[in-house]
Amino acid sequence: MSKTRLLALQLERAEQQLMLFQKISRLLVRESPLQDTLQEIVGLIVGFMDCDSCLIYLACNGQLVLCASNHPHSDAIGDVRLQLGEGLTGWVARERRLLAISCEAYQDPRFKSFSGLPEDSYEAFLSAPIIAHNRILGVINVQHRQTHQHTGSEMEMLTTVGEQIGCLLLLAQMEPEAAEFASHTSAVLSPAARS
Amino acid sequence: MSKTRLLALQLERAEQQLMLFQKISRLLVRESPLQDTLQEIVGLIVGFMDCDSCLIYLACNGQLVLCASNHPHSDAIGDVRLQLGEGLTGWVARERRLLAISCEAYQDPRFKSFSGLPEDSYEAFLSAPIIAHNRILGVINVQHRQTHQHTGSEMEMLTTVGEQIGCLLLLAQMEPEAAEFASHTSAVLSPAARS
Repeated sequence: MSKTRLLALQLERAEQQLMLFQKISRLLVRESPLQDTLQEIVGLIVGFMDCDSCLIYLACNGQLVLCASNHPHSDAIGDVRLQLGEGLTGWVARERRLLAISCEAYQDPRFKSFSGLPEDSYEAFLSAPIIAHNRILGVINVQHRQTHQHTGSEMEMLTTVGEQIGCLLLLAQMEPEAAEFASHTSAVLSPAARS
Repeated sequence: MSKTRLLALQLERAEQQLMLFQKISRLLVRESPLQDTLQEIVGLIVGFMDCDSCLIYLACNGQLVLCASNHPHSDAIGDVRLQLGEGLTGWVARERRLLAISCEAYQDPRFKSFSGLPEDSYEAFLSAPIIAHNRILGVINVQHRQTHQHTGSEMEMLTTVGEQIGCLLLLAQMEPEAAEFASHTSAVLSPAARS
């Protein structure tokens, strides 16, 4: 491939990634039902990654519960639950670390088949923790049926998306009237803050 | 300039912008004093835009109060206040729209000099509302001393940064213990949400 052609492809990819971040940012400031926003993010990720599966698990009482999927009407949503530390997804939640496996994810010693999801037989697995204010709130998984070498940029992307979903989850908890104006300036301009 | 050289420059710029978003995202999930985070964002914007000034105003009781600046120890912080709708910055807050002026910003009919800030004499002005949950929480301004043609990508970038700061402001209001796990899954998986 010529250098020019390669640069053009890299530029196109970088611009797609910028657009992805901008679209997710726009979702964050909108007031929509959380379920809809998570599904929209899943759709954006599938479009960007050209993957076969994107799943979002949310933490609940020490478990991870499947809450969004690119198969949104799947019975698995709400039903697939795993313990923190269980399987690849649970490992990501417990360790709060990104995990990228390019092939034979099901052969990884941390792998555990328990969900009955078809994704259990997929080759490539990329997973990032959903974290906000230093708390683990969930995990987002991207899976390819076939082998897929994840680029550094894809790993960075999913890390950032995990952070953005973390913000989204916290924001979804706030009452609309919480957006009071005075408290921001006082937090910034108080003598303690300015010292 | 050769096509290859142009593509290489565009790619470099897109990658810088991706890095900017990733850094801001990381600031959002950290728990730091709001003042520090706003100053860090100002620093990142100045680095990316190569501008002479970056100011953040926050809304407070119907006024906009200067809360962060690339001259962080300026006496103007906390002192410069303007009404919603007053001057270029006030216009952005009232209209909730991006404003880009490439030269002679001080000749714009909406311009009003009242702050005593040196920025009042700068040529180029780019300003985005800080919005979250459909509320105007402030304005972020980027100014160049000399004429500067803002690119579409710069405008998109500042719009997104305005949204991200909006999220940051809301998150800064939350108590740390607000990151309860159970409420997220229940919000997503309740029968009403799934219908």
